[in-house]
Parts: sequence; C-alpha cells; structure tokens
Amino acid sequence: MSSSQPLRGVVPPVCTPLDASGEVDTASLARLVEHLVAGGVHGLFALGSSSEVAFLTDRQRAVALETVVEAAAGRVPVLAGVIDMTTPRVLVHAEAARKAGADALVATAPFYARTHPREIALHFRTVRERGELPLYAYDLPVSVHSKLSTALVRELAEDGTLAGLKDSSGDEGGLRRLIVALGGRAGRADGPAPSFSILTGSELTVDAALLAGADGVVPGLGNVDPAGYVRLYDAVRGGDLDRAVAEQERLVQLFGLVDAGPESEMGRNSSAIGAFKHALRLLGVFTHGTTAGSQIQLDEVCVAHVERHLRDAALLPVR
Amino acid sequence: MSSSQPLRGVVPPVCTPLDASGEVDTASLARLVEHLVAGGVHGLFALGSSSEVAFLTDRQRAVALETVVEAAAGRVPVLAGVIDMTTPRVLVHAEAARKAGADALVATAPFYARTHPREIALHFRTVRERGELPLYAYDLPVSVHSKLSTALVRELAEDGTLAGLKDSSGDEGGLRRLIVALGGRAGRADGPAPSFSILTGSELTVDAALLAGADGVVPGLGNVDPAGYVRLYDAVRGGDLDRAVAEQERLVQLFGLVDAGPESEMGRNSSAIGAFKHALRLLGVFTHGTTAGSQIQLDEVCVAHVERHLRDAALLPVR
Amino acid sequence: MSSSQPLRGVVPPVCTPLDASGEVDTASLARLVEHLVAGGVHGLFALGSSSEVAFLTDRQRAVALETVVEAAAGRVPVLAGVIDMTTPRVLVHAEAARKAGADALVATAPFYARTHPREIALHFRTVRERGELPLYAYDLPVSVHSKLSTALVRELAEDGTLAGLKDSSGDEGGLRRLIVALGGRAGRADGPAPSFSILTGSELTVDAALLAGADGVVPGLGNVDPAGYVRLYDAVRGGDLDRAVAEQERLVQLFGLVDAGPESEMGRNSSAIGAFKHALRLLGVFTHGTTAGSQIQLDEVCVAHVERHLRDAALLPVR
Amino acid sequence: MSSSQPLRGVVPPVCTPLDASGEVDTASLARLVEHLVAGGVHGLFALGSSSEVAFLTDRQRAVALETVVEAAAGRVPVLAGVIDMTTPRVLVHAEAARKAGADALVATAPFYARTHPREIALHFRTVRERGELPLYAYDLPVSVHSKLSTALVRELAEDGTLAGLKDSSGDEGGLRRLIVALGGRAGRADGPAPSFSILTGSELTVDAALLAGADGVVPGLGNVDPAGYVRLYDAVRGGDLDRAVAEQERLVQLFGLVDAGPESEMGRNSSAIGAFKHALRLLGVFTHGTTAGSQIQLDEVCVAHVERHLRDAALLPVR
Repeated sequence: MSSSQPLRGVVPPVCTPLDASGEVDTASLARLVEHLVAGGVHGLFALGSSSEVAFLTDRQRAVALETVVEAAAGRVPVLAGVIDMTTPRVLVHAEAARKAGADALVATAPFYARTHPREIALHFRTVRERGELPLYAYDLPVSVHSKLSTALVRELAEDGTLAGLKDSSGDEGGLRRLIVALGGRAGRADGPAPSFSILTGSELTVDAALLAGADGVVPGLGNVDPAGYVRLYDAVRGGDLDRAVAEQERLVQLFGLVDAGPESEMGRNSSAIGAFKHALRLLGVFTHGTTAGSQIQLDEVCVAHVERHLRDAALLPVR
Repeated sequence: MSSSQPLRGVVPPVCTPLDASGEVDTASLARLVEHLVAGGVHGLFALGSSSEVAFLTDRQRAVALETVVEAAAGRVPVLAGVIDMTTPRVLVHAEAARKAGADALVATAPFYARTHPREIALHFRTVRERGELPLYAYDLPVSVHSKLSTALVRELAEDGTLAGLKDSSGDEGGLRRLIVALGGRAGRADGPAPSFSILTGSELTVDAALLAGADGVVPGLGNVDPAGYVRLYDAVRGGDLDRAVAEQERLVQLFGLVDAGPESEMGRNSSAIGAFKHALRLLGVFTHGTTAGSQIQLDEVCVAHVERHLRDAALLPVR
Repeated sequence: MSSSQPLRGVVPPVCTPLDASGEVDTASLARLVEHLVAGGVHGLFALGSSSEVAFLTDRQRAVALETVVEAAAGRVPVLAGVIDMTTPRVLVHAEAARKAGADALVATAPFYARTHPREIALHFRTVRERGELPLYAYDLPVSVHSKLSTALVRELAEDGTLAGLKDSSGDEGGLRRLIVALGGRAGRADGPAPSFSILTGSELTVDAALLAGADGVVPGLGNVDPAGYVRLYDAVRGGDLDRAVAEQERLVQLFGLVDAGPESEMGRNSSAIGAFKHALRLLGVFTHGTTAGSQIQLDEVCVAHVERHLRDAALLPVR
Repeated sequence: MSSSQPLRGVVPPVCTPLDASGEVDTASLARLVEHLVAGGVHGLFALGSSSEVAFLTDRQRAVALETVVEAAAGRVPVLAGVIDMTTPRVLVHAEAARKAGADALVATAPFYARTHPREIALHFRTVRERGELPLYAYDLPVSVHSKLSTALVRELAEDGTLAGLKDSSGDEGGLRRLIVALGGRAGRADGPAPSFSILTGSELTVDAALLAGADGVVPGLGNVDPAGYVRLYDAVRGGDLDRAVAEQERLVQLFGLVDAGPESEMGRNSSAIGAFKHALRLLGVFTHGTTAGSQIQLDEVCVAHVERHLRDAALLPVR
C-alpha cells in the first residue's frame, strides 16, 4: 500500500486473543487473520482499540503486530495503531510498527494532557514526518476526549499529512461536511481512487456512510462476521441498496451481543470486547475469550447471551 | 393528525421572526409559514429549538404558536414544543398548546435538575396523560445534557406513550438500533403507516436516515430551503438515491451559512439561528434578522457570508 | 438590604414544602422560615435550586416567594432566584420577584441554548438594568453546563453589575483567585463591609471558604440545621477555627442523609431534596416530605436512613 | 519510607528539564532537586503530570527518575508516577520505578478504554500486589475522565491497598467527606501519623485543605517556590492561620504565571508547564524552558509575563 493507493473496503480492527497466562495467543491470532481474509476483507487494522491496544505492553504489541503481518502475508495491507498519549511516545510505537512491517500508521490526537488544535496539528505532522509511513488519523473522542474538527482534518488531508481518516466520533454530520468539502461522493466513488481515504468506525450505519461517500469501514463486529460486512460493502458498491440495508439490519441485530455484561457490573469495553472474543471462541477461531488487564470477565450468563446472538444471526447452527 | 396517523416527511422547526422592539413579528411569521407550505413540507414544528423557544416568554410563545396554527390553516399538522425544565412547567405549556390548536406536543427530557431514567419515563408518561395530545420525545443532549436510551424510547413507543421521536442526539448508531428493534426499515417504508414516527434532526444526513428507515426529518435549514428538503425526501421515497445524495450535498454546502459568526465572539446558537433569520430576510420572508434575548447579532461581514451561501445555492440570483 | 450593604453570613436556600395535592404548603413554609430565623440565619434565598424552583410553575413560585417574604417580615433580607433559560424569561421572574417584595435577585448564566461568555455578560447586565434590584450571580455548572470565569465575575463585580456571587461551582481554586483579585481576605473580613459579597454553596467546606475570605454560605443542609451553620460561621468570625472544624465535621456527617435514595433508582436531586424535606418533616417543620414533579419519592428504607442521620447528629432524640 | 510512615508535608511534582535536543537535562534536574530540598520540602513526586510524564518515553522516564532518586540521596522520599492507560502497562512502569529506587508508586485510574468502578478497584489492588511498593492513588479526572468515589478510596484505604491519595479532582467536598469518614481532622493532626496519607493537588487552597485535615500538598507551583509552600505548611501546623492565609494569597498571585500563553493559541498544559519551566530558567535552576513533544512553546511576550510574576512575588529582584 503506497500513499497513492488509499484504502477502500472493509478493514476490521483485529482483536487480540490471550492465552491462559495472559500472553498473546499467536496461534489463535493467526487463525483470526485467516478468518478475516477468508471473509474477503480489504485490509487489517492491528493494534486498534478493539485489539485492547491500551492493555498490551510494548512487547505484547510487537508480538501481536508481527503475528498479523506474517499471517496476512501481503494478501491485504496491515495498518498499525500507534496509540499513546503524546508524540514522543507515539514515535516509539511508529518505529516498532515499521520494523514489524506495517503498511501504514493510525494515530489518535494526544490525550491525558490537555491539548490544543494547533498542537494536535503539529502532532500529526511530526508523526507523519518521523513515522516514515502513510498516516491515518483516528478520531475517537470517547477515548481521547477531543474531537478532530472538519477544518483540521481537511487541512491535513489537503497538505498530504494524512492518507486517511478513521472516524469513530459518531459525528455523521461533521463527516458529511468533510466529504463534501473534499469534493463530494461523486468524485470519490466513480473517479479514480481518492487521495484521501475516509473510513467510518460506525459499524451500525455502514450502508449510510458508504452512500454518503465514505470509502470503507473499520467494524469491530467485523471480527465476528467479516463476510457480512463484505457483503454489505459489495451491495452498496453494486448499487443494491435494499440488499445493503437488509444486511446492515442483520448486523445491527448481531451487534446486540455487545450488551452481554450488565452495565452495573462491568465497563462497556470489557463487555463489548469480551463479547467479540467469546464469539470468536464459540466460532472456533479463539481458544479463550479472556479480556486483558483488570477488566471484568464475562460469566456464563453473559456468554449465553453472546451465543444466542450468534445463533440468531445464523453464524452458529440453531439448536 | 390523530395518533393513528404518525407523521412522515419534512417538518421544519419554524423560526420566530422578531420586530424592532423584540416582539414576535406575526406578519413575517405568517409569510414563513406560506414559504414552508409552498415548499411542500409535510408538517410544521413550532416552538422548537430553532424557534428560539428558550428565549420566548410564555406570552410570546402563545403569539408565535397561534400565528403558525392560523397560517397553516389545517393544510399541514402543527407540532408544538413544550420546552421547559420539568413536568409541572411543561404541563403549563401543554395546556397553552392545546388551546392554541396544536396537533401534537414535543417534549424533551427534564433538565436543570439532575434526573434519572425512571424519572424521565415518568415525565413522558405524565405529559402524555395530562397533556391530552399525541406526544413526541425530543432527544437533544446538547441542550438537556442527558440522552434518551434506545431501551427507554422503545419502551415508551411500545406502550403507546409516544407517537414519535425527534432525534437530535447525533447518535445515528443508536437510532439504527431503535429502528431495527421496532421492526426495521421494511416494516416502515413499505407497509401501512408506522404507529411510531421517527424523525431525525440531523439535517446533514437525511438521505442516510431515510435510507435506514427514518420517517422524516426536522431540518432547521428547512426554514431557508424547504423545497430542497422536500426534493431530497421525494428522491429517497422514489428510490432515486443518486439524486437524493446530490440534493443532500447541495444542502450540506448551503448549511455552511451557520458558520457566519466567529466562534471567538458569539455562541453557536446565535450564529446559526442568526444565519437562518438573515437568510430569510434576504429571501424576502422576514423583515428583520434579529435574534432574541442576549444573543450577539450578526454583523455585516457575517451577513455577507450568509448571502454568499444563498447565491452559491442558487437561492438568490448570482450577481 | 441596599446594594451598599452586601450580604454576610448564613443564607439558606429555602426548601418548598408541598401539600398532598402538590401545591405549595404555605403553613409549612412559614414554619420553615421561623425555624431558620430562630436558628440565627442572616438571610434567606427563596426560589433557589433547593426550593425545586425548576419544578415550580410561575404561579407556585409567586406563592412560595410571597410566603417567605411575609414570614421573614423584614427580620432578614430575602433573595429571590429568577431561574430560567434566557434573559427575556428571567426578566419576567424578576418583575414577579420585585412585586413580591424580594430584596435582591439571583440569576444563573443562560442555559439550554449554547451560549458564549460575551452573551453571558450581556445577560447579567440586562437583568441588572431591567430587574431593578441588586443582582447576585449564581455559578452552577452542574445545572447550566457553563462555568462563570474568574475574569468575567471580576469584571461584573468591578463595574457594579453584580452585588455578589453564589458559587456552587465547586471550583475552590477559582474562587480563591477571585477573592485575591478582589483584594484578598484582609480587605474583606477586617475592613468595612465589602462592596461585593461572595457566598459559597459548598456546604461541606464552609470553614475553609470563610478562612479564605468568603463572606457567607448558602447551605442546602442549613434548612435542616440552621443553628449548626450559624455556630460554624460565628466560630470562624470569632477566630476559633478548631470549634469551626468540629462543627463542620458534624455537619459533614449529617450531610450523609442526602445519600438516602439508591443511585440506581432515583436522581441525585430527588434523593438529596427528598432527604432535606423528610428531615424537616421528622423535625416537625413540614407536614409532608414529598418532592415535586416527576421525581421518585423516598421509600421507608430511605426515610429511615434520614432519621438515623438526624439522631446521630442529635437533632432528634436518640431512641 | 515504609508503609507504616505515610507522607506528610510538601511534596512537589518535580518538573523535567529538557536540553536542546529534547532529552532529559540531568544537570538541570539535579539542580531542581537541590532547589526543592533546600526549600525544605518533605518529599518529591517524580513522573507526575507536571513532569510531562505523558510526553516522556520509557527511556526518558527512567533517566528522569534515576536522576531524582540519586540527587535526593535519601534526604527525602521519592514517589514515582507510573502513569499509563491500564494495569499491564502500569506494571511495566512499576518495575522500572522499583529498580530506580523509588519509595512508593503513584497510579491513576485506567484511561482511554471505558472502565468501571469494580475494574478500577481491581486495577489498584493488582498494582499494589505486583508493584511491591506502597501505592498512592492519583485522582485526576481532568486527565483520566473518571472520578474516584469517596466510597472506593475509603474501601482501598481501609483494606490497606492504598498508602494514600493525591487528590487533584478539585472536589473539596468529597475530600472532606473522605477525611471525616476516616476519622476526621483530630485523629490525623494530633495523634500518631495516620495510616493513610491525604495529599491535595489543589495548590491554591492549601491552607484550607490542611485546616480540614489533609496531610500535605503536591503543588506544581512548588517547583518555583518550594520555600513558600513550606512556610505555608509550617504556619498551619504551628496554628498561625493568618500567616498561612497571607502566604497562600501570595502564592495565588504567583500562580497567575500559568496564564502565560493565550488560550486561543496553546493548550493549558503547555502554558502552565511552560511557565513553570521558564520560571525555573529565570531563577537559574534550568538551562532551558522548553516543553516536551508537540506542545506550543512560550514566546517572548509569554516569558515576560512569567518574569513579571516572579518579580511581583519577590522571587526575582525588582528592576
């Protein structure tokens, strides 16, 4: 993937399986990559939020990324998250990602210390220059507590700092304003590959985002059902919006598995990621469904919730 | 409009023109109603946020609502906002709305005092029972600082408390989950009129919302260009999504007029509503473009920004 | 109270008792005023947040304020909250407060519609000019979702717009910066009465606030134990900080009654105000402990929690 | 420092000087430690937020911590921040801190991924068990976007997980409730050393916090004027509250240096930390005033603002 060929399509944020000792389960991770590539995905996003990157030590991040790159074996490009609080720490991850063979970097705005739009711009420019790989901005206010403005993303798109945007802000109106500012849907979908790739992280409105001119999607739920998202993508590209909506609605129902854990007892992250990981275990891809760090684990009732959603979506045989 | 005929289509939140003394300019308001009805809209939402309802005294609210009802003259239904902090104060507005001849009420969750989902549910149930008109919930976290959960709206839809939802939360994923929970798009668009009307307030993604199964839209920008939103609505209903996207993109560009005022000098409300009101003045609908209360007024530079957007959108002749 | 004699001391935000039909129980309210004046308070703040002003209709607000003014009978000044979303609506309440005989007005920043510091300044200046009474700013971000900056309050203090500040922001550092900017503690406590009155709403740190140079306190808990807050105030004024701290710690323990209701089942407002009102019922001041509007009522277990705190604080005899 | 001797007094969060290449300037850092110890401080907090820990790579963190430990040379205890997103990453920093000779660890709640109080409790328990050093909780909602509840801190204090709390939440009322729950001021100030050390990070209200029963303070501004904070601490301990207030007011005025940079052009972090670092440069302690990472640097006008505050506080000779 060169910066002249921005990404299009379905690019799941790859989950990271753990073994009984809490280390990266590389065999399960390689199976997941096969599951995703077999499902037809167009790229892989390693070390994104769904990978529990925030919970992985630097050593574990390296193992996970190397495993994904090796398993992908050049069949699809691999984007690597370089998630950390500030530019100097992000640059350490960028160097590791380069060494591991990633095709592009994905960075958020700085977090923890209060920042400013001018400092965010400088952050992305520095990561682009010194990171030596195409750079995607990851707009994730729920984690970093600032929103990338349309004006800032546009500026960084037009001056070539950014190869693309992964928009997980949920601000569909702002995304639309960006798309229109960058030429609108027509210039994207029908012409040559766009020079700036817009990927939505809103996995429940992919049909709508693609209709509006987004180039692709980074769906956490795509770990569980990559083929479903690929069918959805293909339906929109093929102009069959009715089929796209039907597929999206099926995936919305499947997404209900993230409500596995009760809000009164665990965090939204441990519930959702735990649900993805247990779903992959039930599908035979992962050996364990364990989440990392100090997260609460799903109990039997929660896992039954996940299993029921898999059966309802016909991903497991109905008993 | 009875509760068995929920609303579909374009339902602009009607702006409230003011005269030089700060009172409701009823002649301009009647002209706006004509402008909207002539544009083909399917209903009118009086005393919504775009009406500056928060700035109008009870007396002014009554004048505005009576003017809209009289001018509409039964050609389209009139929904009336009953915006206030808590149930007892909302009920006072509900009684006034009933007397003025409104067809339905639109209420937010309580605000100012910290509340709880159980208290929000009780709020809507009480307003429904004692308000004696069909009730729409207005989900507007930016103003009331709580979000109506999908589960709560679903519960209040299924037990008949709510006739519909005006969703201005920007949470398109949550809205999609609600639509799917209520039967999905197919059951809405193609069957008989749905028993629960879902209206999006996200005026920049109307094509997407309608594609997903929303029944209509409440676009602030629809004050300025009602016909544009009606064309967009008709295009989606007619299955011509390419035309819908093109129309939406034109409206996204026109929406740029809300950036009239510099963020360093005025609030987002005074900038956006001021832009709508000056646009209506430039279009010959309003006599003045003044906003209410202690808001900063647009200056000449700001008004030129508005005018330029009107010309670019071919709503004013290009000079 | 003229604007040349700003307020000092304990100024409780007067709770509003309701009768079985939900109307203002004026007999109980008059008893509360006696309870407070007998406790030695220096002023009364009617229609503040603890009065459930957000839940009272305009008619109920008038009844409550008139009752407080009449019962106070000039023995202490009465400040009246004029709580509403914007300047025009606040001015309606200001006129009512003037007619009811209030000595001063208390207004928050505008809320509901997004605003701007320049608009907030204009708001207070307009309310001061047209309200025709001394004006206190009420800094309450938890309700209005904006914070009055130190610079803004200082500007409005120095130009005479504001007679004082009721600071319920919890930002003790910012309050300290304001006090120092206005001359520091020495110029306040020892010289003639300050021209600008700083009242803290942080009822758990009154000793600290008075030490730092605040002029008084507006304690919700002062409804229940006015004499305790007066003893605390007198101890600091008399230089006996050890006694002040001991009294404050007793009041901190008593404050535990606000945790009466479980967070999973009711809002913080209904729990805290319900606890104050039931405490006043148990003390023989109120006939009912009911809260207004759609709030959840305290059940028997919650009321037992309140009663236990009253006994522990020796406000009720130990059984 | 053993866990049976919790910390009392002034414990500045040590700033980290950088050289022209952006690396830790160990000579300047050693001078800062001398400046602080000569000022009479009772402990040092290395790798706290004021150290720009979020901007330091792991290698730079190690250099900074080793320099502080070596320069302190056992004269005062050294607490080490182990700031990272989650338990596994914090444990890596804990091991490095142990190797560098830190006396205790300071950890925040997890951030970036949404978490839950049960997960936060598990986080602190795991860091305590596997970190092998006394552990202080760092309550810093402005950075980590969750608040440690009084109930949680109390539970972790009483079961011995935590040796203390650094409270930078600004919630003085909650802190007071914690102090009272743990026995009140009397049991802290007058008896034997408390088993749980409460340190406030609110550098503008230290007199008040100590009056209320806090054991000490972690003042960022203490880098610039350690002797001032020690005088303030000694004045409260000696019962001379008038002198304490006067000293605090002087420090509040000095604190104005953090407003060096215009909010429209730089973040609050780069302005405040930049001001501390340039102040230390002007005082001859640091060689450079540069801040780390992608922060905006103070320009000449900003530095003049800092210098003026130093002269006004008599820390530099008046010209």
